[in-house]
Amino acid sequence: MRLLETVGGPADLKGMTDQQLGELAAEIRDMLVETVSRTGGHLGPNLGMVEITLAMHRVFDSPRDRLVYDTGHQTYVHKLLTGRAPKFDTLRQQGGLSGYPSQAESEHDIVENSHASTSLSYADGLAKAYRLRGEDRHVVALIGDGGLTGGMAWEALNNIAAEKDLKLVIIVNDNGRSYSATVGGLATHLTSLRTNPRYEKILDLVKKNLSRTPYVGTPMYEVLHGVKKGLKDMLAPQGMFEDLGLKYVGPVDGHDRLAMEDALRKAKAFGGPVIVHAVTQKGFGYAAAEQDEEDNFHQIRPLNKPRGWTDVFAEELVQIGHRRPDVVAITAAMLHPTGLAPFAEAFPDRIFDVGIAEQHAVTSAAGLAMGGLHPVVGLYATFLNRAFDQLLLDVALHKCGVTFVLDRAGVTGDDGPSHNGMWDMSLLQVVPGLRLAAPRDGARVVELLNEAIDVDDAPTVLRYAKGEVFPDLEAIDRIGGTDILVRTGKDVLLVGIGAMAATAVDVAERLGAQGFGVTVVDPRWVKPVAPELIELAKEHKFVVTIEDNGRVGGCGSAIAQAFRDAGVTTPVRDFGIPQVFLEHAKRPAVLQEIGLTGQGLARDVIEMIAKHQGDAITSEPDTASGRPGNA
Amino acid sequence: MRLLETVGGPADLKGMTDQQLGELAAEIRDMLVETVSRTGGHLGPNLGMVEITLAMHRVFDSPRDRLVYDTGHQTYVHKLLTGRAPKFDTLRQQGGLSGYPSQAESEHDIVENSHASTSLSYADGLAKAYRLRGEDRHVVALIGDGGLTGGMAWEALNNIAAEKDLKLVIIVNDNGRSYSATVGGLATHLTSLRTNPRYEKILDLVKKNLSRTPYVGTPMYEVLHGVKKGLKDMLAPQGMFEDLGLKYVGPVDGHDRLAMEDALRKAKAFGGPVIVHAVTQKGFGYAAAEQDEEDNFHQIRPLNKPRGWTDVFAEELVQIGHRRPDVVAITAAMLHPTGLAPFAEAFPDRIFDVGIAEQHAVTSAAGLAMGGLHPVVGLYATFLNRAFDQLLLDVALHKCGVTFVLDRAGVTGDDGPSHNGMWDMSLLQVVPGLRLAAPRDGARVVELLNEAIDVDDAPTVLRYAKGEVFPDLEAIDRIGGTDILVRTGKDVLLVGIGAMAATAVDVAERLGAQGFGVTVVDPRWVKPVAPELIELAKEHKFVVTIEDNGRVGGCGSAIAQAFRDAGVTTPVRDFGIPQVFLEHAKRPAVLQEIGLTGQGLARDVIEMIAKHQGDAITSEPDTASGRPGNA
Repeated sequence: MRLLETVGGPADLKGMTDQQLGELAAEIRDMLVETVSRTGGHLGPNLGMVEITLAMHRVFDSPRDRLVYDTGHQTYVHKLLTGRAPKFDTLRQQGGLSGYPSQAESEHDIVENSHASTSLSYADGLAKAYRLRGEDRHVVALIGDGGLTGGMAWEALNNIAAEKDLKLVIIVNDNGRSYSATVGGLATHLTSLRTNPRYEKILDLVKKNLSRTPYVGTPMYEVLHGVKKGLKDMLAPQGMFEDLGLKYVGPVDGHDRLAMEDALRKAKAFGGPVIVHAVTQKGFGYAAAEQDEEDNFHQIRPLNKPRGWTDVFAEELVQIGHRRPDVVAITAAMLHPTGLAPFAEAFPDRIFDVGIAEQHAVTSAAGLAMGGLHPVVGLYATFLNRAFDQLLLDVALHKCGVTFVLDRAGVTGDDGPSHNGMWDMSLLQVVPGLRLAAPRDGARVVELLNEAIDVDDAPTVLRYAKGEVFPDLEAIDRIGGTDILVRTGKDVLLVGIGAMAATAVDVAERLGAQGFGVTVVDPRWVKPVAPELIELAKEHKFVVTIEDNGRVGGCGSAIAQAFRDAGVTTPVRDFGIPQVFLEHAKRPAVLQEIGLTGQGLARDVIEMIAKHQGDAITSEPDTASGRPGNA
Repeated sequence: MRLLETVGGPADLKGMTDQQLGELAAEIRDMLVETVSRTGGHLGPNLGMVEITLAMHRVFDSPRDRLVYDTGHQTYVHKLLTGRAPKFDTLRQQGGLSGYPSQAESEHDIVENSHASTSLSYADGLAKAYRLRGEDRHVVALIGDGGLTGGMAWEALNNIAAEKDLKLVIIVNDNGRSYSATVGGLATHLTSLRTNPRYEKILDLVKKNLSRTPYVGTPMYEVLHGVKKGLKDMLAPQGMFEDLGLKYVGPVDGHDRLAMEDALRKAKAFGGPVIVHAVTQKGFGYAAAEQDEEDNFHQIRPLNKPRGWTDVFAEELVQIGHRRPDVVAITAAMLHPTGLAPFAEAFPDRIFDVGIAEQHAVTSAAGLAMGGLHPVVGLYATFLNRAFDQLLLDVALHKCGVTFVLDRAGVTGDDGPSHNGMWDMSLLQVVPGLRLAAPRDGARVVELLNEAIDVDDAPTVLRYAKGEVFPDLEAIDRIGGTDILVRTGKDVLLVGIGAMAATAVDVAERLGAQGFGVTVVDPRWVKPVAPELIELAKEHKFVVTIEDNGRVGGCGSAIAQAFRDAGVTTPVRDFGIPQVFLEHAKRPAVLQEIGLTGQGLARDVIEMIAKHQGDAITSEPDTASGRPGNA
């Protein structure tokens, strides 16, 4: 790693020879493979970004010029070139480098978000601000071909096209796949641009990509059609970008650093918005990642994967698919991660991959339901936020029977604040008619998924955690729809929501050791509030709710409101995730930090009981944890 | 109205002669002008839809074939042709016809939403459902050129383009303006398609439109460029739709019913997705509406408009603009309705109209803030739901100083469930670091807007009601940031949020007449919860919160949580809008119905006190009103 050690910042790249830069690229690839294999993280996308990142930093002058990355998981190379190579082995570890850009880490980072399709909008705003302030600075936005399938990228392009003097360069990093093969008309159009014969040198790469990841529809026809169009247009491909009024440069081989630098210099000199279309190969330079059909190298996870929440869902949905021919499934470019792949294999005409397009996913689901089917929409919990309006008005207002399955709910940990699924149970509480379930274990995923899909006149939602599924925790009794898990006395009613039901049982044991009698319940369906909770609350001295969702407006808040409405005066304390953006760390470390553990909660509950018995008014709220007091 | 009386349904149109249909169109226009002038509603858009609607119903077979309208306010003609002419004089009146499609009204209505850019996604889902179920039905989606600027329309087009055998016809109703002139690269591109010389007969119309509403950039060049392109392509305009792989028919004169029928028949026969590009003129056939530069005829409102909340904001923002050169403003195609027009006039280089693109509006605001400016984003409260993820991660996570001004918050009334701004204060509660203010009158709009814009390291939000601004209600004292409005005793602390502060004072008077001593406060900033509310609560026997926001997760809920966290045991009752989709009616009628009036609330509070003094447990919750019990 001799050359990389000499790079303290982008300025050090400018004096390097082509040969040195080639060696540096090889060193970077080695370091990526070596480190990410150990720490986990995004390998394929970063291997594909080595030359583009070098070229960006040689042509532009960061941080004066601003580099905005879409879905920041492809910024590892950028981190290595901006002084963070010495700390790279701490990637994604608690207290170490984030897996995403971070303003706290470096002045070269500006946008920290990880949700796709946003970079062009940030860049539009930044470039307009510099123009208005009279600052001569360029903004460079990088976006993948997958990111372009998201609607807000289109909104941004439409606006940028109207600003003829904006110093804005858009690099489309086109590898023909976002998480898996990119879908839709845009993908076909990009192919037609890529196959322009002027750029013969990249044709091999394109052909290889095409044969590897066949496009939807009739790829050979499209390719031929694309070539024909390219021949006709010869020197200036008349693509949709130019129809919109945007200057277009490319396609460029994104692994040819010199060609990239040349294209970027031209774009920079133009002085108005320009799209540079770079063709790359995900995993480039690392054979195992290049040939990775199922995109396993997109993000590296530990080997010997145990059975996860996702697996339980995936298997049961196939069973339901056999029983219910009206059940169809929708994914937003996440077929494998959300567990819909087995369903897609079993029922290939009943799966719809819409691209990174959550809004369309949700409203087209409403359409499918209106057409007599029952759609299951598989999403990461954090991405539901992108389609709240569509869920509220397009699905719920129309009383459509659509089932949403939210994976990676609660604290996900290592990928930082924007990946945590801590918002869903608050947002969903406000949706009229919607029913929400939080399974506590694998058996409940099966049971509740079936119950959800049996509802055909209202939206239903299942939300579960990331990773290994919890061992089944059988009820000792059931009242109404609420499972009774522990019953030792009437001091405290513990309501454990979803993944926190097991924690509630742990708390119960600790309270039992201190002589308190408790009841632990799992209401299974957390919206609407189960009426039996009201009766149970009346029989107990205290009620404690525990959820792995933001405390504000969550399940505890809804239960407390139901108690107020029913005139129940039993004191309630609602535990959950503090309403802050959590720093990245492993899930157990985060839960420890915010006090959502059996030990931490038992201590807090005992303290609360003591205070209530002594003094009705407690001391100042605690603002550093997920315990009540920190909203 | 003799011909219209003979139309009981679309089947009755099929036997009519061309001459009869021409007369019918004239009758429809007369009825639109006559009725809407009286009831209020959308005039311009419906005048522009007469021939298109006739053609749709003659070529397709509704309800077997499904007609999906984007932003359903242009369905008045559809209502007249589907048996609802006799009830048309009840338009937008309580218990009468909705101003939007309604499944309860007619089997010819399916999508009831009023938020733009959604129709293509519904239609995609419907058409896929019919294909899978083997039903031979067509789906027709109508969308405006403004609706196409919204990202989810792009997501839908991208998906539809990949489905070669979907029986889906998309009609683009292109009048060159959504609410005002449509902006961006797409508008320019549509112009280039419109100016194709093959369609000479519509050139006059286009020219008239162009001279009337100049496009962003250099219109004459674009028009000439468009004409040149049209000449070259001659018989098949190679537009971006075809680049995406979608069949394109047009442009067609949308006021030439025969031409429209011809285009629709061709599209229907094709058997795959087809875009029919219809050029229309908003307000066609009614001179006053045709020549309406400021789009006053888009929606008809009462004459002699009194001074509104919007006007107060509009004037103050101009003052702030003079004082703060870093303040810029963003609108999503709502320059006039959100009160940003005076600012745009005073500072033409500091206003950005992004089209119907709330997501881009919010994230580009983050970019503007990162670039050193302070953006003010003006939105209707209900449309903020479309950019929640962007507000949460792009603005709040990055601690950007962006001020959101939410107009039409609370119960808006006549435009039905999707226009009510009853969700914002619940959604916003969950956003870390965000500060939210609800002004109770004009003086507070001025005061709080200035306070909000002075915050440069976090998002701030102002939300206010629709219509006439409330008379100023001066405080008698202030504790912390909380205004004391009434102080007669310590029985009940009434917390009046925003527009409900005046109602709280009314409640106080009624309680006083019954011998109760009360304190009425307006916290002005409702997030974070004002710490002085905790001290005040301790001094009173009961706390009552009143807000014109959904009860679930709203301000009352946040205040109750803050009390739980602080160990305050004073009983709380939180009044607000019941968490249901409200039927359309005038705002006062809706507030009466849900019990949010001085009289209704006073009665409920007295009842609550009586119950608490008698029995700790009340009877069954009340589910028909906004009073506690109905979550």
